[in-house]
Amino acid sequence: MRVHIIGTGLLGASLGLALGAKGHQVTLEDTSPTAQQLAADLGAGQVVNPTEELAEAADPTVAADATSPAAHPDIVVVATPPDVAARVIASALEDYPNATVTDVASVKTRLLEAVRELVTEPQLDRYIGCHPMAGREKSGAIAAQSDLFTARPWVICSDEQTPADRLGEVIAMAEDTGASVLHLDPRIHDAAVAKVSHVPQIVSSLVASQLRHAPLEEISLAGQGLRDVTRIAASDPGLWTQILTGNAEEVRSVLIDLRTELDEVIGALELGPGSTGLLAKAIALGNEGHDRIPGKHGQPPTTYAVVTILVPDTPGMLARLFKDIGDLGVNVEDFRMDHASGRKLGMVDVSVVPAIQQELEIGLLSKGWQIPESAIEKEGTA
Amino acid sequence: MRVHIIGTGLLGASLGLALGAKGHQVTLEDTSPTAQQLAADLGAGQVVNPTEELAEAADPTVAADATSPAAHPDIVVVATPPDVAARVIASALEDYPNATVTDVASVKTRLLEAVRELVTEPQLDRYIGCHPMAGREKSGAIAAQSDLFTARPWVICSDEQTPADRLGEVIAMAEDTGASVLHLDPRIHDAAVAKVSHVPQIVSSLVASQLRHAPLEEISLAGQGLRDVTRIAASDPGLWTQILTGNAEEVRSVLIDLRTELDEVIGALELGPGSTGLLAKAIALGNEGHDRIPGKHGQPPTTYAVVTILVPDTPGMLARLFKDIGDLGVNVEDFRMDHASGRKLGMVDVSVVPAIQQELEIGLLSKGWQIPESAIEKEGTA
Repeated sequence: MRVHIIGTGLLGASLGLALGAKGHQVTLEDTSPTAQQLAADLGAGQVVNPTEELAEAADPTVAADATSPAAHPDIVVVATPPDVAARVIASALEDYPNATVTDVASVKTRLLEAVRELVTEPQLDRYIGCHPMAGREKSGAIAAQSDLFTARPWVICSDEQTPADRLGEVIAMAEDTGASVLHLDPRIHDAAVAKVSHVPQIVSSLVASQLRHAPLEEISLAGQGLRDVTRIAASDPGLWTQILTGNAEEVRSVLIDLRTELDEVIGALELGPGSTGLLAKAIALGNEGHDRIPGKHGQPPTTYAVVTILVPDTPGMLARLFKDIGDLGVNVEDFRMDHASGRKLGMVDVSVVPAIQQELEIGLLSKGWQIPESAIEKEGTA
Repeated sequence: MRVHIIGTGLLGASLGLALGAKGHQVTLEDTSPTAQQLAADLGAGQVVNPTEELAEAADPTVAADATSPAAHPDIVVVATPPDVAARVIASALEDYPNATVTDVASVKTRLLEAVRELVTEPQLDRYIGCHPMAGREKSGAIAAQSDLFTARPWVICSDEQTPADRLGEVIAMAEDTGASVLHLDPRIHDAAVAKVSHVPQIVSSLVASQLRHAPLEEISLAGQGLRDVTRIAASDPGLWTQILTGNAEEVRSVLIDLRTELDEVIGALELGPGSTGLLAKAIALGNEGHDRIPGKHGQPPTTYAVVTILVPDTPGMLARLFKDIGDLGVNVEDFRMDHASGRKLGMVDVSVVPAIQQELEIGLLSKGWQIPESAIEKEGTA
């Protein structure tokens, strides 16, 4: 396919790398000549001069299979910042009258409304809104990765009006990036990302914000819990302002629910009658919501057994550990290195299916690893 | 040393395992005979009959070096649930008139006040409040680990009244668990844990709580951001109710500050004048707080370079990866496996010091690993 990408930031450049690797003809366009050239230099696609290309596209004497792919793209992907996406989509529908036009913006309802205001009905059928659920804390083409979309959900918001062949093109392109296609109504998508992405972002930022003026001796008590809750607080304010503005209504509605529960907790902390029950309820409702989050690979939540191994922080030790685990024939479902404070030691939590936990622990102990797991220590000393 | 541990849950049993491994004589006591026996069976120490022991301790004809260590412990550690800790500390000061008495409760000011109400001045000098910053999402002796305290901060709240020899005993015991000792005023400790532990816990629970009634198709969009923010939402409501109650004033004060900022965000989401600036400010303040969290090993925050490697989810692949990394002589500062959705593929983020990022990438690419890092891909194709 001939794919023309408008906007060569993290998502646009990553898409170009992914599709180029699959043999598609990718052309690039960006309002910033530097950003455009950088993405091309990184191998994300071929830079075109939009003016020349559009002149060619408008010229009926130039055949549709002209050597310049940007003149007649099969798909135009709008990967600009969200606040200009509607305008760029409308222009693309006009400039490329045969192409399917899609986008990668993380909010869909408001964008679709904005596009509807700019574009009339028959044109609109060629627009299919998308949201690949991929990103990094870094931004720009320099952070692009050809596998950014691999194994990530790629949401497609088509409707009954969408022609099947155009939908098929977008699905094929999304699948060629390695993503898993998911069809959702724009409103359901926006409600979902408010809960699973936008509200967690705001709350993570608010928790981190409380540390701004804390003395360093207080912050030195930070543990893995705080690090996990605030990891995404490092995200880009400019991009997030656009995302939150675009999904303001849904995000506000979830935040208001959250504030009601927060007010209950604040009230309970005055320690009046019934406060114990209210505090316990707040944590228990969190348990309930937490249990609904799907496990790895989109499967239903699974409780894995966690084996914690003490690993000296020297080169080669992780290699030895994972070689030993591999030699035992054990498949690792997940792992995490815990940050140690004050000394050069790591604790590695390895998640495995519960049935092989004991086998793994016995195997690693016999290879000299320290596993402070009492259940097996007991067997070893009994 | 002879150490008597009262309360054989996760912390008490883990402490017994850690101190026993260092050759200390550990005795155990719990109001639940089952919990007490379980901890002893797991190797955490020797069960004593408190009544017999106390009779012996009170008998002046029995020498201080009697065979039964519980009669004359050097240190008594109170590791009960926080809501009974003050009473148990007071009893221990009375029952063991020569011992240093300490505890592991996660809130210090209120506990010290409660102990002061129960105990008179000369006795009080033998009490030294502690808080080892260690724990797990699991509870009970069955989850105990002899290395639970390894490389964790162990906060000691002594004051000018504390005799140096007793303080020295507690420091020696804490260091023998592998923990890093930290001296803090009880109020500073409580203000710190409100910010770095208690408020993150509440907020994590509140975010997870919003998922309780979300349709599964919405939750299927969950990514690593949500998983990180809500990991600790799986924690035990009973224990957390006691912790929050014990530190209610400090936690409430931080939550009220957080609510003020939340109200600003909710207001800004009405998209009136100035809303863009307010939203950007909320995320930017989060950046600022996030940047203050110390890095691994308690060092100042360091920005590591992250190399992302695509790893098929089959046994032995992690082994191969970490062997290859080890063969390159590269020290891994941190790593994380990213959850994939819908397919059997993992993405492993390996953090290294920036100076060796390129060497690592070139090395791994030459060994056939997929690294979607554009910077090197460019060099490879240029």
